[in-house]
Amino acid sequence: MALQPDKRQLGYEQTLMYGRYTRELGQYAKREAQRLRDEQERRRQLEDDLLKYEERTYWHRSKANFRWFRDWVFTKIGEDWIFLSLLGIIMALLSFAMDYTIAKFQTAHVELFRMLSYSAGLQFLAWVGFPVVFMVFSAGFVHLVSANAIGSGIPEMKTILRGVVLKEYLNFRTLVSKIVGLSTSLGSGLPLGKEGPFVHIASIVSTMLSKMIITFKGIFEDKRMYYSKGQNESRNSEMLAAACAIGVACNFAAPIGGVLFSIEVTSTYFAVRNYWRGFFGSVCGAFVFRLLAVWNKEEETITALFKTNFRIDFPFDVQELVAFSFIGVVCGLGGSLFVYLHRRIVDFNRSHKRWSNFLIKNRLIYPLVVSLVISSITFPLGLGQFMAGELTQKQQINELFSNYTLGNEPEDVNQENIYKPWHRPNVFVTLAVFIVMQFWMTAVSVTLPVPAGVFIPVFTIGAAFGRLVGECMAAWFKEGIRNGDTLNKVIPGGYAVVGAAALSGSVTHTISTSVIVFELTGQITHILPVMIAVLIANAISQLLTPSFYDSIIQIKKLPYLPDISHAGSKTFNIYVEDIMVRNVKFISWLSTYADLQILLDDSMLQSFPLVDAPESMVLLGSVQRVELEYMLDSQIGRARRLLVVKERNQIEDGGGSPAKDKEKVTVVEFHAGSKDNVQQPTAVITANGQELQDLSDLAGSSQMGEEPTIDSVFTYDAQTTEIPKRRKSQYVARALEKFDDMTPEEQREWEAEQLAKQLNFTDCHVDPAPFQLVERTSLHKIHSMFSLLGLNHAYVTTLGRLVGVLALKEIRIAIEKGATYRGSRARSGLSSNTMDSEVSSS
Amino acid sequence: MALQPDKRQLGYEQTLMYGRYTRELGQYAKREAQRLRDEQERRRQLEDDLLKYEERTYWHRSKANFRWFRDWVFTKIGEDWIFLSLLGIIMALLSFAMDYTIAKFQTAHVELFRMLSYSAGLQFLAWVGFPVVFMVFSAGFVHLVSANAIGSGIPEMKTILRGVVLKEYLNFRTLVSKIVGLSTSLGSGLPLGKEGPFVHIASIVSTMLSKMIITFKGIFEDKRMYYSKGQNESRNSEMLAAACAIGVACNFAAPIGGVLFSIEVTSTYFAVRNYWRGFFGSVCGAFVFRLLAVWNKEEETITALFKTNFRIDFPFDVQELVAFSFIGVVCGLGGSLFVYLHRRIVDFNRSHKRWSNFLIKNRLIYPLVVSLVISSITFPLGLGQFMAGELTQKQQINELFSNYTLGNEPEDVNQENIYKPWHRPNVFVTLAVFIVMQFWMTAVSVTLPVPAGVFIPVFTIGAAFGRLVGECMAAWFKEGIRNGDTLNKVIPGGYAVVGAAALSGSVTHTISTSVIVFELTGQITHILPVMIAVLIANAISQLLTPSFYDSIIQIKKLPYLPDISHAGSKTFNIYVEDIMVRNVKFISWLSTYADLQILLDDSMLQSFPLVDAPESMVLLGSVQRVELEYMLDSQIGRARRLLVVKERNQIEDGGGSPAKDKEKVTVVEFHAGSKDNVQQPTAVITANGQELQDLSDLAGSSQMGEEPTIDSVFTYDAQTTEIPKRRKSQYVARALEKFDDMTPEEQREWEAEQLAKQLNFTDCHVDPAPFQLVERTSLHKIHSMFSLLGLNHAYVTTLGRLVGVLALKEIRIAIEKGATYRGSRARSGLSSNTMDSEVSSS
Repeated sequence: MALQPDKRQLGYEQTLMYGRYTRELGQYAKREAQRLRDEQERRRQLEDDLLKYEERTYWHRSKANFRWFRDWVFTKIGEDWIFLSLLGIIMALLSFAMDYTIAKFQTAHVELFRMLSYSAGLQFLAWVGFPVVFMVFSAGFVHLVSANAIGSGIPEMKTILRGVVLKEYLNFRTLVSKIVGLSTSLGSGLPLGKEGPFVHIASIVSTMLSKMIITFKGIFEDKRMYYSKGQNESRNSEMLAAACAIGVACNFAAPIGGVLFSIEVTSTYFAVRNYWRGFFGSVCGAFVFRLLAVWNKEEETITALFKTNFRIDFPFDVQELVAFSFIGVVCGLGGSLFVYLHRRIVDFNRSHKRWSNFLIKNRLIYPLVVSLVISSITFPLGLGQFMAGELTQKQQINELFSNYTLGNEPEDVNQENIYKPWHRPNVFVTLAVFIVMQFWMTAVSVTLPVPAGVFIPVFTIGAAFGRLVGECMAAWFKEGIRNGDTLNKVIPGGYAVVGAAALSGSVTHTISTSVIVFELTGQITHILPVMIAVLIANAISQLLTPSFYDSIIQIKKLPYLPDISHAGSKTFNIYVEDIMVRNVKFISWLSTYADLQILLDDSMLQSFPLVDAPESMVLLGSVQRVELEYMLDSQIGRARRLLVVKERNQIEDGGGSPAKDKEKVTVVEFHAGSKDNVQQPTAVITANGQELQDLSDLAGSSQMGEEPTIDSVFTYDAQTTEIPKRRKSQYVARALEKFDDMTPEEQREWEAEQLAKQLNFTDCHVDPAPFQLVERTSLHKIHSMFSLLGLNHAYVTTLGRLVGVLALKEIRIAIEKGATYRGSRARSGLSSNTMDSEVSSS
Repeated sequence: MALQPDKRQLGYEQTLMYGRYTRELGQYAKREAQRLRDEQERRRQLEDDLLKYEERTYWHRSKANFRWFRDWVFTKIGEDWIFLSLLGIIMALLSFAMDYTIAKFQTAHVELFRMLSYSAGLQFLAWVGFPVVFMVFSAGFVHLVSANAIGSGIPEMKTILRGVVLKEYLNFRTLVSKIVGLSTSLGSGLPLGKEGPFVHIASIVSTMLSKMIITFKGIFEDKRMYYSKGQNESRNSEMLAAACAIGVACNFAAPIGGVLFSIEVTSTYFAVRNYWRGFFGSVCGAFVFRLLAVWNKEEETITALFKTNFRIDFPFDVQELVAFSFIGVVCGLGGSLFVYLHRRIVDFNRSHKRWSNFLIKNRLIYPLVVSLVISSITFPLGLGQFMAGELTQKQQINELFSNYTLGNEPEDVNQENIYKPWHRPNVFVTLAVFIVMQFWMTAVSVTLPVPAGVFIPVFTIGAAFGRLVGECMAAWFKEGIRNGDTLNKVIPGGYAVVGAAALSGSVTHTISTSVIVFELTGQITHILPVMIAVLIANAISQLLTPSFYDSIIQIKKLPYLPDISHAGSKTFNIYVEDIMVRNVKFISWLSTYADLQILLDDSMLQSFPLVDAPESMVLLGSVQRVELEYMLDSQIGRARRLLVVKERNQIEDGGGSPAKDKEKVTVVEFHAGSKDNVQQPTAVITANGQELQDLSDLAGSSQMGEEPTIDSVFTYDAQTTEIPKRRKSQYVARALEKFDDMTPEEQREWEAEQLAKQLNFTDCHVDPAPFQLVERTSLHKIHSMFSLLGLNHAYVTTLGRLVGVLALKEIRIAIEKGATYRGSRARSGLSSNTMDSEVSSS
């Protein structure tokens, strides 16, 4: 029943038998590579032949024309330009719709409050009840639909762009959860932002869009997909990076600042060739976003979001730069304080066992209490009157940026409107109270289990602080600042812009906030003050605390590589051999299925090194976990067992082969143009019975007790791809359901027998070029390799022998402990031996 | 006379003898690493001991305090912040001084022309003679002082930042040549820019500044320097990248755009953690630059360079975006045409043998003729009157950006002044003539052998084109564009801004020109039109031609890696084994000095792989060329020869040792705290005779015919660094000058004898962890590794055996030929064997 082995297979069997190892086996990787290439070549040939055959008929020719057209369209859609503009437009529409909804919610909140002006009690109820209901709904919805939607999303995207796969973080369920949760949590009016969640939403949309395109393409041409898998992966991550940029850009309608901000918060190393992607998508998005605003009659034309109207000729005096630097210093300290405060709140909620257990059991209590407290405080008839409580976030920013000096008496109705909320008891006290209250309220709000960002609330606080300094300056220099013969009035709005950029830059550790404020305000006049304050704020906050997003990465313990700059020169004196894990989990060519089963049960790694033998440890390549799982399954899985039972029954029945299966089989042989050294491939194409045929071949060959050989290639394997393989085994299982299973004893016996056999790698895809390092590579070099190439792990070899493995985790530990290594270097040989930490799965 | 070998050395000799190779030798790399580490540890120990000893006296204690203070100051100066602000300030001062000089030259040119208004002939002479003299002087000066100063500098900086060392490109001579050459060439008034040269100048200043700091530090603490060499190198390249940003930023007084522009034109992959460096330096520079302008009473305060004053409320109508897109399309085509035209001019000058020979022989003819022709054409009384010939570049840009519509009649004196130059015969014709003439004149000018950039001339042309479109629009919609109930006038100045950004972005393939125009004009109102036009222009020009800088890289054949995106999916199917050079030049452990001599003569490579033996080819590490040259020199060099002669003479004299040398020798032994397994180092510190002592030891040990062993370490080597080593041999040569040399026959015989000996690697630093690849790595992966890690070459190994080498050149060829590989893949084993191109030196 075994398939007739073709010449090539025989050839391999004759030249390389199981047992001739070390040097010869070492060349296996090379030959495996050759084999893969040959196969690919052959497949292509096969396809071409098929195509040629099809082209003979008229029907097929017109089909070919249609295919060409379809390919052309799909290539164009798949082409980055169209993809990006689609993504930009979708995100802009989404952003606009959400902004609209949130604005409606917030207006409804204020309107309800005003309508009930006849009763202060009802007013309080409305003012407090509204946000509480929204917040509780948001928390509940997110908890039920997808908890992945909680929080900002930027830390997770940073991790994903680093090359780590976070499961279910980018699926449709999370998208729905995030959109609904975000709309309601922002609708509640609590100090929360939407830039982080928007980055997340854009990434999900991008992933789904490219999946849609691939699936659509895949209906017609799944084979192509398989070939360009590696390409698709790198393209996907490029698109994700662009999506992050588009997310920020759509949120602020700030194409340039958005791209830069997203680069700063998500990347460590940035490929300049991807630069335009973000810009293009963002511009498309920003364009649509602003066009919608025009059609919606909010703005006359495409202009800035928080438009300012400062004096252009003489925006500030050189002497004012001292005050601007002061804003930078305070915002730097304030940013660090904010990150610290947020961390302490999270730690508090976690570290007190009873409290945290209570929170976990009553998930809705925490959001309920927090929103209740915060909205009570901002109640405009109560404490809220001392901190402009009745204004929405957008109104707050607009008024803080306004060109009118709050310290002066209002001259017209417009100024009167701006003046009113900030003058109880006076502008300085109101601003100070506003800053302090918003500060802790924001820090508490962002710990709520709802989708929420931190940028805009922090931006508002910064603007308020800048405004405070500006108003003080305006009060101090009542006549203006003298410069030569001219007197120039101080513009407090300019200070607010500087403060906003500095504080948001300090919390997020970004410089691009300066660009964002230029785009938001539509004025670039304050470029120098803004840049100076942002740089000073960044310098201070980077010295004191990690960025808000890095802090969340630490809190969530996401698998991210810290920056090496903190570890300093030590990294040049720590080497791979000092930190690698010597106790490597591996499979060898000589392993049995039992070994494999133990290995898979023992460890959760995503891939394993393949060596020739445990004694010599020559690294042949790396095998994915899924491949090994499939291998084990096809050896002792249910499908295989049923097949064996079926065969036994047949033998018992007198060897009568099932005729109805057989008759469907068609064997077609393709003779590819014979090339030097490349044997003619034999392709077996079957109609319906193919799967059964194949699997029974597999069973048969094993049954006959053949020793598995390195290169014994089952010809059919050349025709199948991974996914159909899996589907096939399910199919077989279903098809064989009619046969009786073994008895439990039989089964145990049979399994033991099967497990004792040696692994057969013929069916298994081995990556012949996993990333390798030598022992004497410095930590500094490893760090840049890992971060630049986005590696998760690398094997350490000496003369081709596997001596250790290095994963992200070891590097992270080494960098964090950097200081302690210097002393222990002399005994490093010993110390690293004892450090048998498990390789972290990723 | 040989140095008493210490225990450790003996220990090594006993355990590992020459001849036990393959596996044992393979561990050499490991042991070498251990040795290096031990040495480093020991040296540190030694230093500490010395320090402790010194600390005992009062004098030394106060010295220690002083040293601490000095260290603190130097660390702070060496610290990035101070370094960057210094660099920024220096560059700002330099930029300001040069701008001032150039402006004076240009004013003098116009003044001279006006003064001579009584005679048109004299006017012509003055108008034409002035630029010709300046240009010829510039070309001559640059030719004499340093030809490295010719051209832009951005392509070279791109190559240098890629990790390639371009000799003498960053030295003082080039700096002088560039500054003087640039001032005079720009002073001539030809359409040339200064942003590229300024990047170059900033890079030189940065290099010299860090050298100065290191030298200054090195006077006191040269040992430290040696330890942190690797660190310094990576720091230097970070600083160079920042310097490029500062150069651009100072040039335009555009801190944000400058940083982004420099990233776009010089980097492939950008480390986000270096982001702030550029910004900080640029802000310092821009601040000083603008402060100087204030003090110089040019501006009232710190504002934009080409300040515009467009309407803020309603800068443009949505319908105008069509016209803006049109500008983008034309500028995209125009940018490509410009690069093509420039390329053709260069090719013409090169390809016509007689013409190019003539040019090389008469270097000053070409600049003379070109400047003569161009200045004759722009003569304001002749053709110049039809293209605003009398305006300087700065005036041109200012007038093109002006808010006043040229098509209208002027209303005041200010408008009259702007109106006049552009109205002969009318604004449309003048602008069109201006664009066409400037276009080719710029393309010709930048081929001149003087320091010159391309950005500002192209920027001007773009502005003129934008203005032309804007004026057409203004003439077409005389009443303004209707939007609902309002009529909005067209602002032609806005079109000029868009055109300027689009054309400069298209020529340089950058998007950040959009940010630069916002900073230059001080207005961000036209953000969407500018972004749209720049993106369209970029898309078109990237499709058609390489960027101007990449074109120069191709013309100059600089060792740069092209981008892989053009090669597409093929790169996944090409592997290392297909493109690597199999005919590797190597040295083996068994090579003789004669082999080494042949190797060094044969090849110009900067480093060589070290293998154990030509048969087994186990890669032990990589050795720098300088190390090998020193090795050869110390074996058969003049110093060694004289020493041998001296010794012979001594033997002939009866072995009487030269007493006057001997008596100066002092031997001090330090007993470092004995650690586990680390043997006590024996340090021989001598006063004056040290060098002789050491070298004669070396000679002695070799003379005695000892077999060189892998680990026979001369103890003194642990105390010396590379540079002193070299100085020493010169010193010895001078000191031994008094002895007679050998006769030529003797010499030949002696050399032959010496050359037949086996190499002695004891003295030689071997890098035990050169970058290694396996054969089955795809071109795509290699490309990202090489560009990300900045590699020049990598060794290809199979099981630790060196099978090939891959340099930038092979990858470049592979990418360029990408398309042809697909077909030849089946025979790749053969084809790559025949492709024995030499590894390119770098």
